[in-house]
Amino acid sequence: MTYGCQIVTAPLKTVDNSGDIGVIMGDIGRRAKAAARVMALAPEEQKDAALAAMAAAIRNAAGEILDANTDDVAEAKTGGATAAFVDRLQLDERRVAAMADGVGVVRALPDPVGTVIDSWTRPNGLRIERVRVPLGVIGVIYESRPNVTADAGALALKAGNAVILRGGSESFRSARAIHRALSAGLAAAGLPHDAIALVPTRDRAAVGEMLRGLDGAIDVLVPRGGKGLVARVQAEAHVPVFAHLDGNCHIYVDGAAELAMAKTILLNAKLRRTGVCGAAETLLVDRACAATHLAPLVVMLLDAGCEVRGDPETRKIDPRVKPASESDWSTEYLDAIIAAKVVDGVDGAIAHIEGHGSHHTDAIVTQNRAAADKFLTNVDSAIVLHNASTQFADGGEFGFGAEIGIATGRLHARGPVGVEQLTTFKYRIHGSGQIRP
Amino acid sequence: MTYGCQIVTAPLKTVDNSGDIGVIMGDIGRRAKAAARVMALAPEEQKDAALAAMAAAIRNAAGEILDANTDDVAEAKTGGATAAFVDRLQLDERRVAAMADGVGVVRALPDPVGTVIDSWTRPNGLRIERVRVPLGVIGVIYESRPNVTADAGALALKAGNAVILRGGSESFRSARAIHRALSAGLAAAGLPHDAIALVPTRDRAAVGEMLRGLDGAIDVLVPRGGKGLVARVQAEAHVPVFAHLDGNCHIYVDGAAELAMAKTILLNAKLRRTGVCGAAETLLVDRACAATHLAPLVVMLLDAGCEVRGDPETRKIDPRVKPASESDWSTEYLDAIIAAKVVDGVDGAIAHIEGHGSHHTDAIVTQNRAAADKFLTNVDSAIVLHNASTQFADGGEFGFGAEIGIATGRLHARGPVGVEQLTTFKYRIHGSGQIRP
Repeated sequence: MTYGCQIVTAPLKTVDNSGDIGVIMGDIGRRAKAAARVMALAPEEQKDAALAAMAAAIRNAAGEILDANTDDVAEAKTGGATAAFVDRLQLDERRVAAMADGVGVVRALPDPVGTVIDSWTRPNGLRIERVRVPLGVIGVIYESRPNVTADAGALALKAGNAVILRGGSESFRSARAIHRALSAGLAAAGLPHDAIALVPTRDRAAVGEMLRGLDGAIDVLVPRGGKGLVARVQAEAHVPVFAHLDGNCHIYVDGAAELAMAKTILLNAKLRRTGVCGAAETLLVDRACAATHLAPLVVMLLDAGCEVRGDPETRKIDPRVKPASESDWSTEYLDAIIAAKVVDGVDGAIAHIEGHGSHHTDAIVTQNRAAADKFLTNVDSAIVLHNASTQFADGGEFGFGAEIGIATGRLHARGPVGVEQLTTFKYRIHGSGQIRP
Repeated sequence: MTYGCQIVTAPLKTVDNSGDIGVIMGDIGRRAKAAARVMALAPEEQKDAALAAMAAAIRNAAGEILDANTDDVAEAKTGGATAAFVDRLQLDERRVAAMADGVGVVRALPDPVGTVIDSWTRPNGLRIERVRVPLGVIGVIYESRPNVTADAGALALKAGNAVILRGGSESFRSARAIHRALSAGLAAAGLPHDAIALVPTRDRAAVGEMLRGLDGAIDVLVPRGGKGLVARVQAEAHVPVFAHLDGNCHIYVDGAAELAMAKTILLNAKLRRTGVCGAAETLLVDRACAATHLAPLVVMLLDAGCEVRGDPETRKIDPRVKPASESDWSTEYLDAIIAAKVVDGVDGAIAHIEGHGSHHTDAIVTQNRAAADKFLTNVDSAIVLHNASTQFADGGEFGFGAEIGIATGRLHARGPVGVEQLTTFKYRIHGSGQIRP
């Protein structure tokens, strides 16, 4: 194995020597910060050359990546991993090709760095420009989906950042093989190797070091994985975090909704894919149309194999409806289960969502424009939709090309986090000798 | 004293009962969060009516405010406060009038809430809008400048936020009198009293509670005061912080600078006001023009009463130049002192600033456009200027009308934090029944 770089070859000897973790991680942080300065100034052509070389290197190394993955999967199975876990971990030729394609998609996105977002001239002649600049160093902590290594590396690079990747320990060999391909791409384009660092140890203490920010080296953390991981990162991080904890998304069917549209949207929002964060988890139906709309909606879901947990009014519809408990209103099932409730108009829907929602994505179905406007204005979520499925909560569907996740924090990156959201800005001011009176 | 509201009348009894601080602050947080929902939806006219009523109430209560301030000043003097401290604390009729005027200036600013920042239509017909919404609840922790009570309250309100104000304990009576006027303004406009809360106790434990975020009620903290306060808030806060720790600003005089312009800009940047964060603290002179420019610049500063601490080359200019030590390159003097050094061109200037600067505000003086572009691109500060004074680092000078401070964090609010920076955004999506394939 000719990995050929200081960061990874040196620490391989110390993989299980947790006493050195602080030193190893501090070193990675310093190198990433230095690399970030170079990346921030790298021209678009150079970054795109690196991404093209990375995609090619991933395709060329498919055999090596699959071999490493086979070892990871074997160890995970020996360790008693669930079938779902193994499915997320396991790669095949199609998945490796999709990873390379994903890097190509990121390459084709416009480079956000240097874009003038806003500019104006002051009465004294000063011209002020707000210009996009990279965030700096992004730390990505993820579970055992090997493809995140390539996705996050490519997105961070396109936006001119350095990135420190810490993948799940069960995917360590796979991530290392993919990272090797990314490093080859950086080298081919003459960009610093340290711009995409993979934490070279399975030691979980490395995560703690990243949460503390590596002496100010990490500018933002992005956790990718289950609720336990996100909750830990949100609770313990000393740096800003782009993430969402829950996607408890609502579909509100208003009194003025067309039943056919409501059925189509609800079926898609709940069952197109149940495991995504934009899947609907609660159905709210306006009392004004409950007599005509509630039964067809609920029966449709039940017939499609979806468990329905309803309030007393919903339970009258069909004996298959189970009783909802208070906790159902706050639960993200990520499964073929939905909570259902009758509410008093758009105000009742807003009150329920504000009381139980997770400020991720919520939709209203209605032909009444005033009700739609009220819902879109009053529901305090990152994404609010009128007459469309909540499953559009996705960077690709927004036209961002790719995303590193969806954020529900109130600051900076909210909603899908794509290339543009991985930048910040600075003010550039052009004068001709102005001084302040 | 008829303060007439639950938050303040109840806790007055418990001012020195620190055992209740957690309960009191938790209650303030919950009320502010509820008020923030109302404020987020308040129309511009209602917010402006409140600001007009606040300005009038401050003017009407000038006597009461000055009486309270007299008591604060007397206590501070008894406690041995410095003259500078007393100057910041002390109000007079002119300062009270300026405070009311300041609220009027904020009222006249455009309301950022509801502005569509960006919009686009997807191939499937979905129309996506990015819309400004308030941040939520802003916590402001400040020292004994009573006017911050009115400034911060007005700015937060204009942007549709609720705010929790924690002023310095030495200005407690003054802040309370000013807060009473703000409360009267809210009441006159029918807005919730809890939208502008003043922490009703001098107990310093209240600050600790705010740093922990009041159970998620506080969305962002803004410290206003000396370096000790800002450093503590940055180190201990569990919520995002808008602030800057240091304003170590540089003036780089390039080889292609006009001497007359360099002199004018340098004099203004260093000495217009020495105590502001945009004041220049280090002069860098290009070796290429040192023979012609260094002496006139340094002598000008010395003759104006500015202490100059120079590198060996600068010390040859004039016996009044003192030797600079390594720490001078990183020091924010906030006084009539400047560090001075000869560097090798724009690259030398960039290296020095990146090594020693605080990423606040830095300027280049040059007639060479390529050198200016390189400096503006390579210096990684919130504000970079070409041929203009660093003292323009100010929300008013940017045209923001007013600011709550200047931030050097990389995320969200960078540079002057005005009304617009006290908002975030959400996505509003308009469909016609779209579902995701």
